[in-house]
Amino acid sequence: MSKITPTTKGVFVIAATPFEPNGVIDSNSLDGMVDFYFDKGADGLTILGMMGEAPKLTHSESLSIAKQIIKRADGKPIVVGVSAPGLAAIGELTKAVMDEGAAGVMVAPPGGLKTNEQIIAYYANVVSTIGDEVPMVLQDFPLATGVSISSTTMGTIFENHPSIVMLKHEDWPGLQKITDLREAEANGRRRVSILCGNAGVFLPEEMRRGADGAMTGFAYPEMMVQICRLCNADKYDQAQDLFDAYLPLMRYEQQPALGLAVRKYVLAKRGVIAHTAQRKPGADLSSLAQKEVDFLMQRLERRLAELKN
Amino acid sequence: MSKITPTTKGVFVIAATPFEPNGVIDSNSLDGMVDFYFDKGADGLTILGMMGEAPKLTHSESLSIAKQIIKRADGKPIVVGVSAPGLAAIGELTKAVMDEGAAGVMVAPPGGLKTNEQIIAYYANVVSTIGDEVPMVLQDFPLATGVSISSTTMGTIFENHPSIVMLKHEDWPGLQKITDLREAEANGRRRVSILCGNAGVFLPEEMRRGADGAMTGFAYPEMMVQICRLCNADKYDQAQDLFDAYLPLMRYEQQPALGLAVRKYVLAKRGVIAHTAQRKPGADLSSLAQKEVDFLMQRLERRLAELKN
Amino acid sequence: MSKITPTTKGVFVIAATPFEPNGVIDSNSLDGMVDFYFDKGADGLTILGMMGEAPKLTHSESLSIAKQIIKRADGKPIVVGVSAPGLAAIGELTKAVMDEGAAGVMVAPPGGLKTNEQIIAYYANVVSTIGDEVPMVLQDFPLATGVSISSTTMGTIFENHPSIVMLKHEDWPGLQKITDLREAEANGRRRVSILCGNAGVFLPEEMRRGADGAMTGFAYPEMMVQICRLCNADKYDQAQDLFDAYLPLMRYEQQPALGLAVRKYVLAKRGVIAHTAQRKPGADLSSLAQKEVDFLMQRLERRLAELKN
Amino acid sequence: MSKITPTTKGVFVIAATPFEPNGVIDSNSLDGMVDFYFDKGADGLTILGMMGEAPKLTHSESLSIAKQIIKRADGKPIVVGVSAPGLAAIGELTKAVMDEGAAGVMVAPPGGLKTNEQIIAYYANVVSTIGDEVPMVLQDFPLATGVSISSTTMGTIFENHPSIVMLKHEDWPGLQKITDLREAEANGRRRVSILCGNAGVFLPEEMRRGADGAMTGFAYPEMMVQICRLCNADKYDQAQDLFDAYLPLMRYEQQPALGLAVRKYVLAKRGVIAHTAQRKPGADLSSLAQKEVDFLMQRLERRLAELKN
Repeated sequence: MSKITPTTKGVFVIAATPFEPNGVIDSNSLDGMVDFYFDKGADGLTILGMMGEAPKLTHSESLSIAKQIIKRADGKPIVVGVSAPGLAAIGELTKAVMDEGAAGVMVAPPGGLKTNEQIIAYYANVVSTIGDEVPMVLQDFPLATGVSISSTTMGTIFENHPSIVMLKHEDWPGLQKITDLREAEANGRRRVSILCGNAGVFLPEEMRRGADGAMTGFAYPEMMVQICRLCNADKYDQAQDLFDAYLPLMRYEQQPALGLAVRKYVLAKRGVIAHTAQRKPGADLSSLAQKEVDFLMQRLERRLAELKN
Repeated sequence: MSKITPTTKGVFVIAATPFEPNGVIDSNSLDGMVDFYFDKGADGLTILGMMGEAPKLTHSESLSIAKQIIKRADGKPIVVGVSAPGLAAIGELTKAVMDEGAAGVMVAPPGGLKTNEQIIAYYANVVSTIGDEVPMVLQDFPLATGVSISSTTMGTIFENHPSIVMLKHEDWPGLQKITDLREAEANGRRRVSILCGNAGVFLPEEMRRGADGAMTGFAYPEMMVQICRLCNADKYDQAQDLFDAYLPLMRYEQQPALGLAVRKYVLAKRGVIAHTAQRKPGADLSSLAQKEVDFLMQRLERRLAELKN
Repeated sequence: MSKITPTTKGVFVIAATPFEPNGVIDSNSLDGMVDFYFDKGADGLTILGMMGEAPKLTHSESLSIAKQIIKRADGKPIVVGVSAPGLAAIGELTKAVMDEGAAGVMVAPPGGLKTNEQIIAYYANVVSTIGDEVPMVLQDFPLATGVSISSTTMGTIFENHPSIVMLKHEDWPGLQKITDLREAEANGRRRVSILCGNAGVFLPEEMRRGADGAMTGFAYPEMMVQICRLCNADKYDQAQDLFDAYLPLMRYEQQPALGLAVRKYVLAKRGVIAHTAQRKPGADLSSLAQKEVDFLMQRLERRLAELKN
Repeated sequence: MSKITPTTKGVFVIAATPFEPNGVIDSNSLDGMVDFYFDKGADGLTILGMMGEAPKLTHSESLSIAKQIIKRADGKPIVVGVSAPGLAAIGELTKAVMDEGAAGVMVAPPGGLKTNEQIIAYYANVVSTIGDEVPMVLQDFPLATGVSISSTTMGTIFENHPSIVMLKHEDWPGLQKITDLREAEANGRRRVSILCGNAGVFLPEEMRRGADGAMTGFAYPEMMVQICRLCNADKYDQAQDLFDAYLPLMRYEQQPALGLAVRKYVLAKRGVIAHTAQRKPGADLSSLAQKEVDFLMQRLERRLAELKN
């Protein structure tokens, strides 16, 4: 079973968690969704993140979803989000999913952390709780967590903990941080893999700044796959053409809180999951919003056809 | 097995969760601690609150502690804190502890809530998740949660959900809120029980404003018991004399984050628990802080002796 | 001198404040910038907003800029941002700029407001301070202010204060709020003008939901002007074609804190202002960021040419 | 005219700003208030702080108050709060009050700062704006500002800027920070004066940890004066006896937002100022709160009499 490493590259799709309208986990959709992501070119998946509605699951539900997905992925790497208010829950879920064959775990900082010293101490506590043999992703998403991690703080954490092999980068603005991290590596700091989130809305710039790929849940994973390939081949104009075609929808999908409803709506329209349902307090798209997404999806198809010619 | 009701009065001590120095739950201390609280006059206990280090426990640990305490309490009411980032976890723990004989559950709002409408919707979701037959305590502690609930918002929640029978009041400043709630009841709104937290530092004023008692974890529960009794007997000067004697230590104990270390230190000195240990990231008192607490405890004993004469 | 009203429509550009590299106000650029905005089709300007670096100016500097711009605008409406931590400063600047012929003032809520009641009371205090004969814009920008104003809270404020004639709408997500406000008006509430901010990244959807135009500082105001015209003529596909062409740059410009450096860089490249300088703590774009913007500007020109054919 | 220095010791009272009921500055009360503070033993005053309702004043009002107080103080040191959202306003007021003979200025960090690096950069910008010949007080009050400054961050700021000669210490909990700073000085860092705020509720512990005195606005400044003297004479039990007598009222006065109404009420009862009025949105004490304060003041007098015998 493969693990993530400091040289991991490519696209890890942030997976949704499909539910039935009554809030029960839709296990039937799970396997098809995993197949869809890999069919579209994903290199791995990240499950039980914020977009995966992880905080709405019980421990046993989380574990059951992780088991099923890891099994279905059949050796392809699955990163599992284990963020929780306390270390014991993080440790418990980490142990369970690593035993099942996860490729690593992802941890975002809890909301109360303020000073650099508190953030550094937090990750030391996490690593000592889960063990330094477990590959870990640091999720840097200040808009959602309220925690700001400076480039130097992040550098200290990477120096302290070789088991943190990857950054899920979604600071906003965040391009300078990628440059800072890569420059520090050029000056001798060990390398970390940087996969970018934020719904992909800065993916071309991020790749040029030195990112290794994408880790986000945009409902057209093929976009991320192709843009990463084109950027890796230095075809930046072509990459940007493709990006621009998807951007109107990506922008719509990036709306905080609302974004997941958009993603589930698009995934359902694409036949990937059976229901758009989220667990409470999530809500379906209004009919006006559905029309707006329909309009953008139709225009996307048309624009992609134009680009092919 | 008794349940909390809108007319519940008295002192519910917020119980600590004792740990061994290695972070394992100290089950041996648990029973003695329960006995101590009731021996000192507590009417009930509230367990698995913030002070009980609840977010540091796994689900199975929480349940195991709740079981042991409910059993030891032998019919006396035990309220269980079930706050969690998601509704599923709240529902799961509520069902389990109510099945074991809990007197009710306590829920604080999660950090992200902002508008009145969001707060009102949150409690509607909680009640529909746990069922409206479960007696519930609303914990109003803006300093810790970051969520401000106005008097009118709270009134709307009480009107919407008769199963919310009690307020754990720890807004700061919060005296006007007690007056607002009692005035609304005088004008026809149904009654709720108001037990006050905030380490007890406003207990005399709170009782005169109409509170029904205290719900806090000050390490001398006998203080709360006596002050409630004296206030109920309109002996306000005597109540305040006693309060003033304890206040220097209460003030020291009220320091955010540090307070739990103080409480465990005092509880251990009083022989109630075997160890002062908290789970990480909690830390023991520094030696300077220990000396400060020792000084205050000695002065407290002296002052109580003076007052007896 | 024209004033804003509940039926004001069109594009009010959020004006930059040009500085010389040493931080002195660049009065020479000011007149040219005003001319540029109106030449590109702006219906009015909003000055001394966040993007105008208003908090970095002294009272006398603010007043001097306002005077010069109002004079240069020669009767076209100029809205002046007067947000400040205290009411006295708001009152002082409002009186001064209204005496000079401003079309109205704009007020964003200060950071500490939490409950609906506090927000409603704040705007009552503002209106009673500046007088209810001064037309006012309520700026709703939670990402920057930290204050969340629900649709019903906003409705109450509009009902209480007829002098608040306009909403600068930049909640995110915010489309539902436009729909809520327009539905309430359909049910009898008085009309307010809604001009949209957020760098314009939802302008087509906002216009279809019922907005009256745009109020933002995107460095190509002609885009906003044309999109508003096309949407008003129900030419949504054409509007979206144009929007999509600008979106890659708009998205780049929308980055919090960094956005102003992008705007000043583009405005300087377009010859509108002489220097890109911001007052501290603002900083110029890095050379990497400049290249990214250059790339997007070149692609924009190419795409606009394609669309013309 | 004396300036503050790294060895300044004693009590600097945070002065109220007296208003008439209609919100006009009550210049008549100003002189008497200054005399009262010095008669009670104050070594200096700090004016235009949060408690001085500084954000509610216009620039010219601030300057006029500062002039009158500096004149009345007749050579005794007056520190002036100059915190503002932008550097230009800080620079303008600093220059004006230093020209009038202020002893130094005080600056609290603005709300948006998050990382250590941002805080360090902010103070560098302030010092370069006001000039490094102006003695400055750093106000560390996270509960009010939302900005957390770690001991090491503070140390870096002190090392970078010798003109920052004093810390107004009101972190909570904050005792360890005093110990950290004094230990760093024992290891070679230059000394800063530490005067403590937080309404004085930890003054005895702060003095034993190495503080140089108090800087807070408790309405009985003679308490702070005597406690500092007793602590400096190592009479800790006597100091604590006195402290304990005042503590019930100090605790009441420390309530956030409400505290200023309490102070003005007590100051008016003591005949120091003519009116309890605050500028909006400040409000007078409710009649219930007035009774609570009356009760505590009467008990204080009684207890002080007991202690004398």
